[in-house]
Amino acid sequence: MLIVQKYGGTSVGTLERIDAVAKRVLETKNSGNSLVVVVSAMSGVTNRLLEYADHFSKSPSKRETDLLLSSGERVTSALLAIALNELGCPAISFSGRQAGIYTEGIHTKARISKIDTTNMQKAINEGKVVVVAGFQGIDENGDVTTLGRGGSDLSAVAIAGALKADLCEIYTDVDGVYTTDPRIEPKAKKLDKISYDEMLELASLGAKVLQNRSVELAKKLNVNLVTRSSFNNNSGTLITGEESMEGAVISGIAMDRNQARVTIRKVIDKPGVAAGIFSELAKNEINVDMIIQNVGVDGTTNLGFTVPENELEAAKNALKEILSNDVSIESDKEIVKVSVVGVGMKSHSGVASLAFSTLAENGINIQMISTSEIKISMIVDEKYGELAVRALHKAYNLDA
Amino acid sequence: MLIVQKYGGTSVGTLERIDAVAKRVLETKNSGNSLVVVVSAMSGVTNRLLEYADHFSKSPSKRETDLLLSSGERVTSALLAIALNELGCPAISFSGRQAGIYTEGIHTKARISKIDTTNMQKAINEGKVVVVAGFQGIDENGDVTTLGRGGSDLSAVAIAGALKADLCEIYTDVDGVYTTDPRIEPKAKKLDKISYDEMLELASLGAKVLQNRSVELAKKLNVNLVTRSSFNNNSGTLITGEESMEGAVISGIAMDRNQARVTIRKVIDKPGVAAGIFSELAKNEINVDMIIQNVGVDGTTNLGFTVPENELEAAKNALKEILSNDVSIESDKEIVKVSVVGVGMKSHSGVASLAFSTLAENGINIQMISTSEIKISMIVDEKYGELAVRALHKAYNLDA
Repeated sequence: MLIVQKYGGTSVGTLERIDAVAKRVLETKNSGNSLVVVVSAMSGVTNRLLEYADHFSKSPSKRETDLLLSSGERVTSALLAIALNELGCPAISFSGRQAGIYTEGIHTKARISKIDTTNMQKAINEGKVVVVAGFQGIDENGDVTTLGRGGSDLSAVAIAGALKADLCEIYTDVDGVYTTDPRIEPKAKKLDKISYDEMLELASLGAKVLQNRSVELAKKLNVNLVTRSSFNNNSGTLITGEESMEGAVISGIAMDRNQARVTIRKVIDKPGVAAGIFSELAKNEINVDMIIQNVGVDGTTNLGFTVPENELEAAKNALKEILSNDVSIESDKEIVKVSVVGVGMKSHSGVASLAFSTLAENGINIQMISTSEIKISMIVDEKYGELAVRALHKAYNLDA
Repeated sequence: MLIVQKYGGTSVGTLERIDAVAKRVLETKNSGNSLVVVVSAMSGVTNRLLEYADHFSKSPSKRETDLLLSSGERVTSALLAIALNELGCPAISFSGRQAGIYTEGIHTKARISKIDTTNMQKAINEGKVVVVAGFQGIDENGDVTTLGRGGSDLSAVAIAGALKADLCEIYTDVDGVYTTDPRIEPKAKKLDKISYDEMLELASLGAKVLQNRSVELAKKLNVNLVTRSSFNNNSGTLITGEESMEGAVISGIAMDRNQARVTIRKVIDKPGVAAGIFSELAKNEINVDMIIQNVGVDGTTNLGFTVPENELEAAKNALKEILSNDVSIESDKEIVKVSVVGVGMKSHSGVASLAFSTLAENGINIQMISTSEIKISMIVDEKYGELAVRALHKAYNLDA
């Protein structure tokens, strides 16, 4: 098999951790696999470099910041290659440029445009383990670019797609994807398998294992993704495009604390009004999540939506600009979004009603509801959040 | 003027030092000059990276070591560019590759083969200060290479030559080139000007301001080199190809403590014997410095030479391999080499004899003598080394 492995900052956080990674890579290689290993900067390095830049400027040039930050991953890649060679495992390290990773768009959050696999393929054919500095590429000017948050995951997925690798393993300090946050519900179970779409929902709902950009790219390139821990030998969670069986399978319960609810009362109910409000919010780069609009009464309606907590003030300011004074804007930070995620729930009656009745039985009022093909999200009072998660986890039999 | 400035590790040793460098660059720019600034890694960084590599392997892959080490200079270059932009001075940082520095030969001590000035020239034409990560280039495979000790000086000189810069300023923590080591003779004077050849002699004799490779390259490319301190505004020493005036000008007295003397007695005096000895030493990578052979008596002769102290044991072992047992090998580490350096001394009688008589007057026995166009070197007992330096400094009127 051709396997792409990616090790995050804590997995390569110390020289001893890099020793452990080298041993794991060697074992994978000795089992008869070809390997490309993508590495992050040692934990703490990127932040230290950013502090350095901050000493000189509160808004440092993004081009320079990219050149600065890219050094962290380069150091890790060279060190791991040295460690592998010492273990008798032929290895070669590549910077983003040498790995053929081309990007477009703006510095500090560039997008991968293409991967020229020539150098990597040649080294693989020579029996070498290829160690790639993650998070970086070069643009058409030959300038170093970085890929933004979760960038090394993205490097790994893109490389796996370009090389048509059999597997892309993302190593972190957690065992995989859980049915819910084990800190809230100790009975939470690790999932062996989950679909891309479910993972996307869970990630956007606060499961911090993987960034959505990486899962989206894996789905697009049809890369079999495994997320697992580099601190033990547990098997992790496979994220793949394969459909679940016929039955409605609820894969997990997620909770997002980082939401605030906004309600606008007595909005004039005519075409274009909602569009005006949400385009104003978009112009101010505010990420609107759930949107609820009821049928209006007397020519006016109430419009509800949620935004990230730290964007609430900006959202309110933007709305004041465009709304007349008699329109009242209410907001509430003391809410959480609880979601039930699972493939096939739409085609199975009773999945949604089980959620509503479960919360009702526990005396939890649902403020807003929104549904999609694979999830039901409910806004509830923050103080009932954890109770809601535990109750739903039990109701959908995820404790079993 | 187009000026290339190079700042060494102590000059960029802290964020505050980089602030000071940025201010100096800005002043130079504001005086109407165009600038290319070559930077080293912040002091301590390269050693820390080498320690990291050492954790994994006692003989790390040189290719990987180069990728590892090159990150240090890249960080400094990005930080300085950020600092300059913040001061309102447009600046752009280039890695060795982006600066167009191509090398050949082995990793960790590559040689610059050519410089493609396209990127640098374009940025200069746009009015930007170009900040280049020193010490590094890329080879024909696109792999990162480093230039070995003093590599950033070499980057600066090569860039100055390729851009036909008016001046190449090498900033360190000393004021320039002195007539002798001020720690030995407090009356030592800073030289305003010295020729390439004199500088080469002084450098090889222990004046640590510049590596010989850089001076040789400056001479070859006809680059006007200035060495000065980044910690004050003193004018430094200009190293140039211009000839000194007609008179015999002694520019300095140097002392090299790091030498050991070897004498081989009763070597058979026939052609090829000396060649055999010195080719054996070369094969063992021992750097032989002074060589003295007297006319022989009775078909045998005595052969004397000096080697660096830390290569003495290796030299003796190599000699035992090829010499017969009745040849005796003597060695002495307790010696120093004291040298008088100056252009035109050969054409002026009395220069050499003044050295010999000065030492004689001070009761210092001369064990070996060797002369060149521009220097007289004498091996004396180590305990008289400093006395010899002070006496010669006075005799040649360098105190004046």
